[in-house]
Amino acid sequence: MFEARLLQGGLLKKVLDSIKDIITEGNFDCSPNGLSLQAMDSSHVSLIDILLESEGFEHYRCDRNIPMGLNITNLVKMIKCAGSEDIVTIKCEDKPDNVTFLFESKDNDKISDFEMKTMTIDDEHLLVPDQTYTAVVKMPSAEFQRLCRDMAAIGDTVNISVTKEGVRFSTTGDMGTANITVRPNPSGDQKEEERTEVQITEPVSAGFALRYLNSFTKATPLSPTVTLGMVPNLPIVVEYKIADMGHVRYYLAPKIEDEENAVEA
Amino acid sequence: MFEARLLQGGLLKKVLDSIKDIITEGNFDCSPNGLSLQAMDSSHVSLIDILLESEGFEHYRCDRNIPMGLNITNLVKMIKCAGSEDIVTIKCEDKPDNVTFLFESKDNDKISDFEMKTMTIDDEHLLVPDQTYTAVVKMPSAEFQRLCRDMAAIGDTVNISVTKEGVRFSTTGDMGTANITVRPNPSGDQKEEERTEVQITEPVSAGFALRYLNSFTKATPLSPTVTLGMVPNLPIVVEYKIADMGHVRYYLAPKIEDEENAVEA
Amino acid sequence: MFEARLLQGGLLKKVLDSIKDIITEGNFDCSPNGLSLQAMDSSHVSLIDILLESEGFEHYRCDRNIPMGLNITNLVKMIKCAGSEDIVTIKCEDKPDNVTFLFESKDNDKISDFEMKTMTIDDEHLLVPDQTYTAVVKMPSAEFQRLCRDMAAIGDTVNISVTKEGVRFSTTGDMGTANITVRPNPSGDQKEEERTEVQITEPVSAGFALRYLNSFTKATPLSPTVTLGMVPNLPIVVEYKIADMGHVRYYLAPKIEDEENAVEA
Repeated sequence: MFEARLLQGGLLKKVLDSIKDIITEGNFDCSPNGLSLQAMDSSHVSLIDILLESEGFEHYRCDRNIPMGLNITNLVKMIKCAGSEDIVTIKCEDKPDNVTFLFESKDNDKISDFEMKTMTIDDEHLLVPDQTYTAVVKMPSAEFQRLCRDMAAIGDTVNISVTKEGVRFSTTGDMGTANITVRPNPSGDQKEEERTEVQITEPVSAGFALRYLNSFTKATPLSPTVTLGMVPNLPIVVEYKIADMGHVRYYLAPKIEDEENAVEA
Repeated sequence: MFEARLLQGGLLKKVLDSIKDIITEGNFDCSPNGLSLQAMDSSHVSLIDILLESEGFEHYRCDRNIPMGLNITNLVKMIKCAGSEDIVTIKCEDKPDNVTFLFESKDNDKISDFEMKTMTIDDEHLLVPDQTYTAVVKMPSAEFQRLCRDMAAIGDTVNISVTKEGVRFSTTGDMGTANITVRPNPSGDQKEEERTEVQITEPVSAGFALRYLNSFTKATPLSPTVTLGMVPNLPIVVEYKIADMGHVRYYLAPKIEDEENAVEA
Repeated sequence: MFEARLLQGGLLKKVLDSIKDIITEGNFDCSPNGLSLQAMDSSHVSLIDILLESEGFEHYRCDRNIPMGLNITNLVKMIKCAGSEDIVTIKCEDKPDNVTFLFESKDNDKISDFEMKTMTIDDEHLLVPDQTYTAVVKMPSAEFQRLCRDMAAIGDTVNISVTKEGVRFSTTGDMGTANITVRPNPSGDQKEEERTEVQITEPVSAGFALRYLNSFTKATPLSPTVTLGMVPNLPIVVEYKIADMGHVRYYLAPKIEDEENAVEA
């Protein structure tokens, strides 16, 4: 059987909000190490990788690996019924037909339980890339969200160029061209989470579909910062860390480069 | 003639907001005792009962009973034009073709008057039930509103079961089952309006259409608490008290019970 | 060439917001005196007149008159990408194919530049009336906005009557009649921007299409007060001053008067 108790139920809501626009169903893999999910979006262009480590739960028991196939859309509806301050317990049998979500309010005067039907989802064997990135940018997640939204109003593709001087986001559409350059901040007077930090071994530049980047930024409430990892000709990773528990990561392949998208630095 | 002056014009807005999604026209009955309205929704399933006692008005004069037939939709549009801090005066003749609503701002620098055409509405003789309830639940109105909205995302019907231990709201839909149990709070550390109180002579359980309960919760701004009164096989009453003036009450017949909806306590 | 640097980039956003629902393209006229725009709405009923004087810019250089034809809809999209605290610089050549908008964040860690294509727009020779008004009303812009919105829920045309006693807004629709009278406030206890002031040489009354007045109130964020200027049988001017820089003015011809709209004071 599987049973896990999480003190911040709101966290579960945020995790689901970060994927609900990308996938409609998914296999949550329960293992002794934690709860994880890997899935591709319906057009098989981007990849989601979620990890919630067992240590992050108040109580965690998992006797054997259990795939928990759930309809994400329904799960989101169900979990909306719980308060964001509630304590959540997830329970199921080894080969579950149902998964139970139990929500307890802090002062224990309201208890909600949801019994959700499971579904069988064909497991895709996904190879989540694990590698060293040529360029790593850490920036405020709200700023990255705003950038992606703004760029999407102008063009379909954003070119992201990372150099020591900063990160340049560029897009072109019918109406003209927009460039936004974010510079690494001097580490002095800002809070760590408001700083932009760039670490590169060599400059990198690639173009990405804004539609996907925009959907990734639904994870913004999970973390005050986002980390972008880039390697030439390989997918970008957009990572939101979940404090003391794990992460939500998104992978997206670059658009095939043409001259317009080449490094201009 | 009829003339009534109410210091809190915002109250009139809230009363209209509490019925505007249920009825499109209604007869306001002006009598020496106060202003009242009884009406069924267009599908004749639920019943609204409003009372604003004459004592609650700053000035109240009503020489004889006057039915004031008004288009609620238009009335709501008109009254939106008044500030919620305004003083309102309602005036009409004994057999009115028009009703005048006069709004004065607190500092008297803005005066709005609206002249609305009346309409003839066939009076239904409604028998508003007056009885002793087997179970009475008083709970925060905002929590009841949230519960009804959340349940409606999952199913069409909510089963409400009241026992000494508390109130259980249950619903079932395609995606699964949800139960929310609200326990009576110890009367010590919470404000009266945040407490849930249960008074029963015997446990009661019945199912109700969430669509109607949800529309009733439009009255939430009228009162910090709501009272549910239940008797086996009879309509539930959902009451919002209006301080020093009266109430807005809704009556809704239970769904015909099947096994699923039977008392599970 | 033309180059102008404005410390409050947010001001440019507000100016564009005030016209974007009325015109989709426009010629900004750059001259040594400042940046201006005159345009009629697409139905040629109302007229916009914008002036941003050169003195209001931190830096302003304009060697000769340059018409800068721009697609307003696209410009609004572009400028949304800039922060409202940003410093904006507008640059173009004498016969520009492109106009560059450069936005710098206050702490200089984010730089955005937008290059917009210009378009050729047939210049209409507009005669913006310059005259003495029979009645001038200065009132809080938020209150005027609310009035126009509220009146539009009831009728299509508002009759504005100005007398020494105040301003009366009246409208009639299927559901009835509404009158809102705003009185000039005693100048004592209110902030200047909360006062209503009336200056008249004789009473004036005229009817105006609410659809246009409502679109003018998009300029509300530009100024805490609005000034209405009226002359019998001539267009009303609705003016929003831009502190230390200029104004956004709208002109709208009165509806042909019938008895209903005549002065009732």
